[in-house]
Amino acid sequence: MAAGDAFAKLLDRWRTIAGAAQSALVRAPAAELGPRERAHVRAELAACIEGRSGEVASRARAAALGETYIRLNRAGRQQFLGVLAEFGPDRSDIARLAAALPDAGDDEAFARAANDVRRALEPPALAVFKQFNSLPAGIKFLVDLRADLLELRADNPPLARLERILRDLLASWFDIGFLSLQRITWDAPASLLERLAAYEAVHEVRNWRDLKNRLDTDRRCYAFFHPLMPDEPLIFIEVALATEIAGAVGPLLDTAAPLENPQRATTAIFYSISNCQQGLSGISFGNALIKRVVADLTREYPQLKTFATLSPVPGFTTWLRTHDAADAPLLAALEHKGWQRDPEVASAVRASLVRLCAHYLLEEKRRDGTARDPVAHFHLSNGARIERINWLADTSSKGLRESAGLMVNYLYQLDKIDENHESYANGTIAYSPAIKALLNGKT
Amino acid sequence: MAAGDAFAKLLDRWRTIAGAAQSALVRAPAAELGPRERAHVRAELAACIEGRSGEVASRARAAALGETYIRLNRAGRQQFLGVLAEFGPDRSDIARLAAALPDAGDDEAFARAANDVRRALEPPALAVFKQFNSLPAGIKFLVDLRADLLELRADNPPLARLERILRDLLASWFDIGFLSLQRITWDAPASLLERLAAYEAVHEVRNWRDLKNRLDTDRRCYAFFHPLMPDEPLIFIEVALATEIAGAVGPLLDTAAPLENPQRATTAIFYSISNCQQGLSGISFGNALIKRVVADLTREYPQLKTFATLSPVPGFTTWLRTHDAADAPLLAALEHKGWQRDPEVASAVRASLVRLCAHYLLEEKRRDGTARDPVAHFHLSNGARIERINWLADTSSKGLRESAGLMVNYLYQLDKIDENHESYANGTIAYSPAIKALLNGKT
Amino acid sequence: MAAGDAFAKLLDRWRTIAGAAQSALVRAPAAELGPRERAHVRAELAACIEGRSGEVASRARAAALGETYIRLNRAGRQQFLGVLAEFGPDRSDIARLAAALPDAGDDEAFARAANDVRRALEPPALAVFKQFNSLPAGIKFLVDLRADLLELRADNPPLARLERILRDLLASWFDIGFLSLQRITWDAPASLLERLAAYEAVHEVRNWRDLKNRLDTDRRCYAFFHPLMPDEPLIFIEVALATEIAGAVGPLLDTAAPLENPQRATTAIFYSISNCQQGLSGISFGNALIKRVVADLTREYPQLKTFATLSPVPGFTTWLRTHDAADAPLLAALEHKGWQRDPEVASAVRASLVRLCAHYLLEEKRRDGTARDPVAHFHLSNGARIERINWLADTSSKGLRESAGLMVNYLYQLDKIDENHESYANGTIAYSPAIKALLNGKT
Amino acid sequence: MAAGDAFAKLLDRWRTIAGAAQSALVRAPAAELGPRERAHVRAELAACIEGRSGEVASRARAAALGETYIRLNRAGRQQFLGVLAEFGPDRSDIARLAAALPDAGDDEAFARAANDVRRALEPPALAVFKQFNSLPAGIKFLVDLRADLLELRADNPPLARLERILRDLLASWFDIGFLSLQRITWDAPASLLERLAAYEAVHEVRNWRDLKNRLDTDRRCYAFFHPLMPDEPLIFIEVALATEIAGAVGPLLDTAAPLENPQRATTAIFYSISNCQQGLSGISFGNALIKRVVADLTREYPQLKTFATLSPVPGFTTWLRTHDAADAPLLAALEHKGWQRDPEVASAVRASLVRLCAHYLLEEKRRDGTARDPVAHFHLSNGARIERINWLADTSSKGLRESAGLMVNYLYQLDKIDENHESYANGTIAYSPAIKALLNGKT
Repeated sequence: MAAGDAFAKLLDRWRTIAGAAQSALVRAPAAELGPRERAHVRAELAACIEGRSGEVASRARAAALGETYIRLNRAGRQQFLGVLAEFGPDRSDIARLAAALPDAGDDEAFARAANDVRRALEPPALAVFKQFNSLPAGIKFLVDLRADLLELRADNPPLARLERILRDLLASWFDIGFLSLQRITWDAPASLLERLAAYEAVHEVRNWRDLKNRLDTDRRCYAFFHPLMPDEPLIFIEVALATEIAGAVGPLLDTAAPLENPQRATTAIFYSISNCQQGLSGISFGNALIKRVVADLTREYPQLKTFATLSPVPGFTTWLRTHDAADAPLLAALEHKGWQRDPEVASAVRASLVRLCAHYLLEEKRRDGTARDPVAHFHLSNGARIERINWLADTSSKGLRESAGLMVNYLYQLDKIDENHESYANGTIAYSPAIKALLNGKT
Repeated sequence: MAAGDAFAKLLDRWRTIAGAAQSALVRAPAAELGPRERAHVRAELAACIEGRSGEVASRARAAALGETYIRLNRAGRQQFLGVLAEFGPDRSDIARLAAALPDAGDDEAFARAANDVRRALEPPALAVFKQFNSLPAGIKFLVDLRADLLELRADNPPLARLERILRDLLASWFDIGFLSLQRITWDAPASLLERLAAYEAVHEVRNWRDLKNRLDTDRRCYAFFHPLMPDEPLIFIEVALATEIAGAVGPLLDTAAPLENPQRATTAIFYSISNCQQGLSGISFGNALIKRVVADLTREYPQLKTFATLSPVPGFTTWLRTHDAADAPLLAALEHKGWQRDPEVASAVRASLVRLCAHYLLEEKRRDGTARDPVAHFHLSNGARIERINWLADTSSKGLRESAGLMVNYLYQLDKIDENHESYANGTIAYSPAIKALLNGKT
Repeated sequence: MAAGDAFAKLLDRWRTIAGAAQSALVRAPAAELGPRERAHVRAELAACIEGRSGEVASRARAAALGETYIRLNRAGRQQFLGVLAEFGPDRSDIARLAAALPDAGDDEAFARAANDVRRALEPPALAVFKQFNSLPAGIKFLVDLRADLLELRADNPPLARLERILRDLLASWFDIGFLSLQRITWDAPASLLERLAAYEAVHEVRNWRDLKNRLDTDRRCYAFFHPLMPDEPLIFIEVALATEIAGAVGPLLDTAAPLENPQRATTAIFYSISNCQQGLSGISFGNALIKRVVADLTREYPQLKTFATLSPVPGFTTWLRTHDAADAPLLAALEHKGWQRDPEVASAVRASLVRLCAHYLLEEKRRDGTARDPVAHFHLSNGARIERINWLADTSSKGLRESAGLMVNYLYQLDKIDENHESYANGTIAYSPAIKALLNGKT
Repeated sequence: MAAGDAFAKLLDRWRTIAGAAQSALVRAPAAELGPRERAHVRAELAACIEGRSGEVASRARAAALGETYIRLNRAGRQQFLGVLAEFGPDRSDIARLAAALPDAGDDEAFARAANDVRRALEPPALAVFKQFNSLPAGIKFLVDLRADLLELRADNPPLARLERILRDLLASWFDIGFLSLQRITWDAPASLLERLAAYEAVHEVRNWRDLKNRLDTDRRCYAFFHPLMPDEPLIFIEVALATEIAGAVGPLLDTAAPLENPQRATTAIFYSISNCQQGLSGISFGNALIKRVVADLTREYPQLKTFATLSPVPGFTTWLRTHDAADAPLLAALEHKGWQRDPEVASAVRASLVRLCAHYLLEEKRRDGTARDPVAHFHLSNGARIERINWLADTSSKGLRESAGLMVNYLYQLDKIDENHESYANGTIAYSPAIKALLNGKT
């Protein structure tokens, strides 16, 4: 039983270290990788890739490699990952197999040849990464490792390649079909709520009272979870149930505001949506989250008629500063701290700012024809339309700095979603009559 | 909300149909696929593969296609799958991309070129299969669809290729790391136990009393489950806790036998292991199952010292009949029904049969050098050794017919498992001194 | 820690013994109570009643007494309980305190005097019984002990008094407010379903297939549980969802009968209701069970309009044999085995039997004015009315023997339940126009 | 179905109101009870006590009465309860029955006569209270109603009698045997932790960080729950795992203090124990809680050897001020705010204060011979001994004001608990050699 015991102990140690890595230890890792250790890591990675040992030995090796990695500081991790990146594809082998493809003969022969090529193309690092999915907390380890890679990949093409390999693997493991939607209430574990507050990226959670207000009876909060990371939300959304589309975020975050009766609500306002895992960036959950939340809300409250967001315009002021149409006095006005509290100034800039915002949302595109504003792009590609631009809707310092205090309602009309989605893919943005009037200078 | 409602209804219908498919309906499916429907299926599959529609429309289309499939009879399904198999790779495109590989330039350029090839090689059918993972019961639908393909692939290369595509997809989704080990007791849902009894492939479950006996306090039963098929076991194993290695299966299945005290047990006997999902055949869970069960038992009962199987020799008599060494009188003796109850006959053939069995297990190999007997191959490749051959150990009709009544103990020594596993991979089979004596004619 | 350890071991042993008592051991108890043990039991019971020791010592003493009791055979238990019954009230003390009541003075003085009397009247045995509620499986132990008392109390007034003391205690612990209603499906633990089948008292469960049929999608089964006996149902009811009131039990128990669509059901048929715990007899759960099941069904299926039973008439033939109105030829006809399969005989006796049954249900009363038939009394006191008498509705041997094959529908009209309940309390039985016609000889 | 619907609505309304009562509404109740309403309440209570209606009508009546009560302000509730208190016992009936007791004849006759008296003595209000146990949140309603009674009973003997009736009922319902012990961690629902923080009565919870620190890996928190009040803790205890008996509370509440390794802990420090439900005051849970927590900890950490509290001496300074032995200069020194930070003053008073505290704990008794200090009485009656008095152990303002900064360790020695408990019941307090030395003036 000695071997079994040793393995159990090794796993326990890994569990402790991996768990700690996700909370505190990572912030103060220990060391770089000396030349001797580097050789050892290289040998172990090679053994991992070769993959001839039995399951027990393989898992032990992976756990040991993981522990080594976690204990390293930034420079050490860069070295470790550099060693892993050394294991590249066998290009001559691939060239030989690929050369056979054109003359492969019948479909069966072609399928086999294609399969050979596919196997040969499989990056060796993949074999290493896959070892971790059966370790406790192993998936979270890989997600965090990708977060490291995203930071380290700049000017480091081998790490950039590693990052792409890991992204593809995580994208297949975190397929929407594998995720579960969970409603989060004030009855959720405090440990989870603490994490949620830390992950909130749109409107900062100020304290537990603020958090409780966002989980009250006239609110809904939903998150996606992966079965192998049951304590870690992947993305979450905050919803207010109301009787009309909200025009400002202040009342929603006001802990003293009176409660709405959800049974009488006609409108669901999505006022915050945050991704939680840096290591999953580029793997999209938001579209599916909104669709499933709409389905869930519709089931619970059949009287809900309107589904709309209250969203920032994070790229607006940056664009404004570089844009000709924005005249100097306007920009100068915005430079004065507290301009929004001066009625004279505010009323002077209001019409221009709103019109410019409409222009920015609808006309400013990225090279691929999609909307320049990232939040606009997200909702438009989900099939929403631009519904309304709200004046002085977010007067927090972040709201003023990035969005000039404006917020946008994007409207999700369930019977138009697929149509809008396809139009947007073809370059056409959907918007409301009110926005149209604005563009035509009628407001 | 009309569209949302329609989608909800469609999903509900799919849920009902898919659920029923897994129980009863499949047995009496409705129809073949007429020419008009075939064209419709082709168009829908093409739309699925093209993948331009929004999420809601896509899921609706997949559900509708799934419903069509479920309602078809065998011939209709063959037609349906034939249509799907028509969507082959774009060989000229692939040839073009593959041709660029040898001269791809630096590693970064090569990685990108390799990625292009990899994408082009991706079979279009994969896009269709992946649509199902976010439908309720969708994974089980695919598993059952593969079971269909395994039946239909003979003499049908396009379906054989489809089958391989689906196998690879399922193999990645059913990676051991994603499975959960669950202990099954008499407190488990009756619906699950009913299913377990139906899946038992080694020693038939005769009735609920038999089943209850196998879940009593001196037994353990464990199964692997996938988070997306929570009601469906993938594989399960039955274990008896005892004070010595069992030499016959009869006492283990005797519902009147006295209970052992598990606190005093020194030995765990694995006396049955059954795969549950035809559609997952070729994707191996058994090795990991045994390892995890050993770990779990060791934690609960630290006094357990010996882990051994009591296994059939399913290929023995088939081999015997074609083997020169088996003289005619021996074979003739076995032809008489009830020979095992005639002490004279039994004692006459015992020594020869046992020796021949040892020879069969150790010397008879498949072309790739692995043991010819499938059960022997399974345990040997897991790292067990052949421990003992038991005379008249399974006198059920199946036991006599396939194994001449013999059963084998394979021994799992935890500190030798990896070593045995690697030796076996190199062609060397591990066995006990007793077996050695047998081979040397000393017993 | 030694004392703590010893206590933990003692509790573990008790847990094992009490658990086993509830399954098998009780059937083969060991011994009577010798004179020395009797003295020991007496001393321990006295210590228990005196109650001066700390909590740990008290629980240990109770567990030891419980173990002693469980190991006794019938005679031994009678002795044990006899010793307990020796601890009677202090009559002179009571007389003295009671004498003070009439002249107690103001209300406050009276309340205190009354309280003194109440305390003095408290039976010493109560202190013993109460010790068991904090032992694992202690409540079940007391329930089973009462079952023993119910058997042993005949001709044994001291035990009859003990029985009443325990009944009152259990009645307060098993107050309806403390019970939880649970739906039982085919997904329930096999161990629970096995128990349910054993407890079924109306229509015997023949096998697991029969049981599964009663839990299918067009059926409902509900049971009451106590939080301290979570694995033991107290009472359960079986319901069929249908489109009309059932007139015979055969089709309901036919495992080959087609499934109804519960979404289209308009009628809920309560076709079996069974108490599970002998030791709780006389403590009534049935009324509350039916009311809560009706509420639960109404919530799930708002289209349900009719709630009716299909019930036996268990006292009918017994009454018939002693009743003048039943002429000899009728009785003689029923004596022939298989009479119900002879159309001539059956049609000859039908009208008389049905009319006599109506008379029996409506006119035959117990001394207290309630209906003589126990099943009729149960449903009438719950507020149901007699709706219909069904001919050849239960042709099982029990059905023929007790009810002459007749079954009765009792109708629960939700807006009449309280009214019917109160009328019945005043001696008036509610019945349908059809029954009225029958009584008037119009059918 | 109309009646059923109306009842369901009434119940839903009750559920909402009762739920709200437990959070916010109670603080701003609406009104007094007018003369007409008073008559209505009287009639409804009478109907409740008479108890002839069916179950549905009875529950509806109770819910309506409960709703009326909840909406009343303090004066209105006093009126309502006054009406209930009017329903007194039938004294002439009781006198008559009690008079029969002395001549009741044999034991059986006496038992029946005693039973008659017992029934007649049962207070009518009990019937009203019992109606609530089957309403959702009904138990919590009664607990809160008793809290009202405890406030209102002063100078109001009828309400004082009602209070005692309800106390006896709640004492039987909240018998220790019915409670479940639950460990509370940082993974507990935030709503529960919020409640816990509000209930903490010894060392105030300053914020969520403070709370999290008390639930960290080197701490344990346990609470008792009742199955019918699953979200409401009854009592909870906070434990620190350490390597020696703690001498001050500051380090335990310091959120920046390093974590202990619980695997190496030898000592469990109970540093806070709080009752949560005012309405359950006088019903004791603390003794059982400590015993079960000790059992639970011993199972999890067999290496724990020492179980001790770190407790305040809440009555010390109050006693000190009225005590002759405390000379004027000592008392004067304590009057200066911040005296504890002045080393000269502190060292001057230290010896006297500690000796006086030992005297206070050991010699000052209540009329019934028990220790005057309530915390001392609690632990001594549980079977602990006084182990150590700690100087400047709680320098919070409350700690200085009530306990002069002193804290006491009470030691729970598992093999002495019952012995100590019994000695204390006979007037003898257990203490350590160190305390003995102190009393003898040797320290």
